[in-house]
Amino acid sequence: MTMAEKINETGKKKDDNVIFVGKKGVMAYVLATVTQFNESDEVVIKARGRSINRAVDVAEIVRNRFVVGAVPSVEIGTEEIKGDDGTVNVSTIEITLTKI
Amino acid sequence: MTMAEKINETGKKKDDNVIFVGKKGVMAYVLATVTQFNESDEVVIKARGRSINRAVDVAEIVRNRFVVGAVPSVEIGTEEIKGDDGTVNVSTIEITLTKI
Repeated sequence: MTMAEKINETGKKKDDNVIFVGKKGVMAYVLATVTQFNESDEVVIKARGRSINRAVDVAEIVRNRFVVGAVPSVEIGTEEIKGDDGTVNVSTIEITLTKI
Repeated sequence: MTMAEKINETGKKKDDNVIFVGKKGVMAYVLATVTQFNESDEVVIKARGRSINRAVDVAEIVRNRFVVGAVPSVEIGTEEIKGDDGTVNVSTIEITLTKI
């Protein structure tokens, strides 16, 4: 079990500390990330496609202004999205911020 | 001296193995990266701001299709850009691909 997979009181798995970055404004995800740091020392920021640059912005704003010194560890990958017109490859990013 | 700093015949420093990703199509940078792999085992793909997602696309296409198995190591950061209206922070990414 990684830190991303917590078991809560009801025994259900929760990816509590994962923030998915999409089309909202950057500060919405910054707030979600900072809030999550109150409950865990590690927060994972995930995004794909055109939201990837926003995920990097979120991580940088969080660690420069709010959780100063949080250390980023970054992984990139590719996901296959199946649509009506066949399969499309989309790039993904996963930024793990760890409070020190 | 890191691998990014080569001295050429005239004694001038060259960042030969660094590809800066900007506004061109993804495949232009894929081609540049693959070409650079003919001369070094390590290529650094850099981008900032909205080009960050394109840099991830470049790295993923290169290592999935052309230099299969190249290992990515990713760093993120922030750069201050000074303009007429003061200073703006821009996120940056640096993806080092290493041929194995």
